[in-house]
Amino acid sequence: MSLDNCKKVAAYKAVDDFVKDGCKIGIGSGSTIKYAVDRIKELGLKNVICVPTSFQSTQLIVEAGLELSDLSRTPELDITIDGADEVDKDFNLIKGGGGCQLQEKIVAYSSKKLVIVADHTKESTELGENWKKGIPIEVVPMAYVPVMKKLESSSFSLTPKLRMAVNKAGPVVTDNGNFIIDAQFSKPLSNIPQLAIDIKMIPGVVETGLFVNMTKIAYFGQTDGTCKVKSI
Amino acid sequence: MSLDNCKKVAAYKAVDDFVKDGCKIGIGSGSTIKYAVDRIKELGLKNVICVPTSFQSTQLIVEAGLELSDLSRTPELDITIDGADEVDKDFNLIKGGGGCQLQEKIVAYSSKKLVIVADHTKESTELGENWKKGIPIEVVPMAYVPVMKKLESSSFSLTPKLRMAVNKAGPVVTDNGNFIIDAQFSKPLSNIPQLAIDIKMIPGVVETGLFVNMTKIAYFGQTDGTCKVKSI
Repeated sequence: MSLDNCKKVAAYKAVDDFVKDGCKIGIGSGSTIKYAVDRIKELGLKNVICVPTSFQSTQLIVEAGLELSDLSRTPELDITIDGADEVDKDFNLIKGGGGCQLQEKIVAYSSKKLVIVADHTKESTELGENWKKGIPIEVVPMAYVPVMKKLESSSFSLTPKLRMAVNKAGPVVTDNGNFIIDAQFSKPLSNIPQLAIDIKMIPGVVETGLFVNMTKIAYFGQTDGTCKVKSI
Repeated sequence: MSLDNCKKVAAYKAVDDFVKDGCKIGIGSGSTIKYAVDRIKELGLKNVICVPTSFQSTQLIVEAGLELSDLSRTPELDITIDGADEVDKDFNLIKGGGGCQLQEKIVAYSSKKLVIVADHTKESTELGENWKKGIPIEVVPMAYVPVMKKLESSSFSLTPKLRMAVNKAGPVVTDNGNFIIDAQFSKPLSNIPQLAIDIKMIPGVVETGLFVNMTKIAYFGQTDGTCKVKSI
């Protein structure tokens, strides 16, 4: 079974388990989420309100004919369904491979529950086991050099790289007008909750792709067509 | 002596004490800083490089004919001279009355030393004693409603207000395209270092106007024309 089909299996099952009539739902971003939106549309539920986490997510909602809202009108959501680049054994996440971690974290934080949907390659024991690109860190453009210097200093010992764009000269610019630094690490991260705080407290850091204590349940689509549901 | 003259006394003395030939200096924002730039110009120092903290600050540097740089070219500064809305007995600061706290904090953090220059009304024992407008918090626009709800919840018990613009309809938009929430407090703040962390960790908060452990010296211009220098 292809990875795309694994993503679909996870997304469909999570939607079937959690999305009901009247649900106020945060819609994540990335390649798995389009299947979640497909399934919400298929089910023909009533009065579902969707809050997006990116331009891509907004487009998916609009194209599916679902009701689009935002956190000003709908600040409290029942659930957010989103992907992840990696999920460790303690449900710490790395997110932001698609550069949308800022809005994703804001929307997830406004939800009673965050449900992760992903293919089986995203499940790890420790962060970094499968995901090799590091922690995506969204920064104010003017601060990218001092932030990178801080990340590579002995305070962090990370290897930061400014994420470069492919179809334009220069760096990737996020939906919020910021840059992304991917901070790679060569040995397992220790004390991830504290690390998430230490990185965000660097002036100029807008958000990190470390999601700590934000989810208790993840759906991983398997190659045999089944879905592995992990929760704490 | 007018408050403007008190500001001038503080700014002139701080520049005289700290700015030398070859200095790489962060230029703060606000009403006191124009006097600091005036004095740097007057002294005719050689090879001074200035990194601004706002549009206003950039204009002051350019108009004075000083050399303008940025943190990409000059990521390590010798000193930043900046104002503050309030300085408490432990050198905790409230900044951001002028809406520039994000860039101000980034630039100050890239400096070996932050020197505060202000008129005497900015000196307090406890934050909130003189400054009544609360803590300025820069937020991503899409997050302002959930961030305000969080600030007024029992986790913080603050009274948040979205800062509104005067010469345009709608909210103040910062130089970085964000909104500002002024979070008022009615009783003295306890554990300011932890509060600064707790506020910045709310997803959607880009930076707070609480400056903790960032400065050890402040110049306060007095009504009698003298300057009170406090340091730890």
